[in-house]
Amino acid sequence: MPKLEFWYDFASTYSYLSAMRIDAAAEKARIEVIYRPFLLGPIFKAQGWSTSPFNLFPAKGQYMVRDIARLAAVRGLPFRMPETFPANGLQAARLALSGETEGWIAPFTRAVFEAEFGEKHDITDPGVLASALQRIGVDAKAALARSTTPEIKERLRAQTEVASARGIFGAPTFIATDGEFFWGDDRLDQAIAWTMHIA
Amino acid sequence: MPKLEFWYDFASTYSYLSAMRIDAAAEKARIEVIYRPFLLGPIFKAQGWSTSPFNLFPAKGQYMVRDIARLAAVRGLPFRMPETFPANGLQAARLALSGETEGWIAPFTRAVFEAEFGEKHDITDPGVLASALQRIGVDAKAALARSTTPEIKERLRAQTEVASARGIFGAPTFIATDGEFFWGDDRLDQAIAWTMHIA
Repeated sequence: MPKLEFWYDFASTYSYLSAMRIDAAAEKARIEVIYRPFLLGPIFKAQGWSTSPFNLFPAKGQYMVRDIARLAAVRGLPFRMPETFPANGLQAARLALSGETEGWIAPFTRAVFEAEFGEKHDITDPGVLASALQRIGVDAKAALARSTTPEIKERLRAQTEVASARGIFGAPTFIATDGEFFWGDDRLDQAIAWTMHIA
Repeated sequence: MPKLEFWYDFASTYSYLSAMRIDAAAEKARIEVIYRPFLLGPIFKAQGWSTSPFNLFPAKGQYMVRDIARLAAVRGLPFRMPETFPANGLQAARLALSGETEGWIAPFTRAVFEAEFGEKHDITDPGVLASALQRIGVDAKAALARSTTPEIKERLRAQTEVASARGIFGAPTFIATDGEFFWGDDRLDQAIAWTMHIA
């Protein structure tokens, strides 16, 4: 089955939009989605940004909230901005990576995004992450323990380095097997069409 | 007829994409397009940027060129990046404003964008602007002379101030009569649908 990499940061509002539709779109196109959580923070820092551009440039941040609200409404998705933006997605991303080998990275990713941008929850709160795990039928205590092992920490660090080395500068980013690169929820359909075309 | 404002900078690649399709899309929807050329330079400067973000962040700039090339190919548009990016669009924007009252702002806007991103011409060259005027049947000498009058200079300055005051931070931006605001060529269809809906 042709593959498409889905690079996302748990703090990213546009990643939320893509996470909630990528599996259905890929299934229709008979494409496999490879989930690639990473951290945008170090990449923004390398660009000289201390926080999200939506905070650095308030007009852009205000517009983003309105833009997401409009798109979410059309797609029937709830949308509420959490108190703190961007949330630190470190623990969520480590948990997601723990779920990769165990086969629950996709539903966990959706559960976290739903809690964050649908229900306005703080995803740095271990209780919120435990709820997301329980919602998808995963033993929360065991998963939380495994997510802080040196192996998982190192995998997230390495994945973020790969993102940076590949020139990823924002999220979501979709990368086809031939290296073709698509940035933004706006480009998801195009990325899927490309992946079908090269297969 | 319902109206939609189209705010654009002649240096902007995504504005090129929108300029080449907005009139056809608006005509189909029975909407009037109000052309609003302005200068992004002073707005970027206020954000602390000395040039286009596509130059400040090279990975984003490289991606933009690829993204535009893909979209242009799908739409049957030629695309070649000019030697200097971003071009200084001051003279082109003043000329466009001169054409507003005379009724040729739309075809002139398309002619300049075609020369710049279709044929890789330098739009700071008065010869290139004169050709664009001739192509649409306008007396180039008279138009070039009128475009440097204090009245036109002041109109562009004021229009750029209005853009800034309205919170415009990039181009193209589409603004509906109720103030609803859409940023990016990606949002043109949504802006048109919105305009039809509120009419």
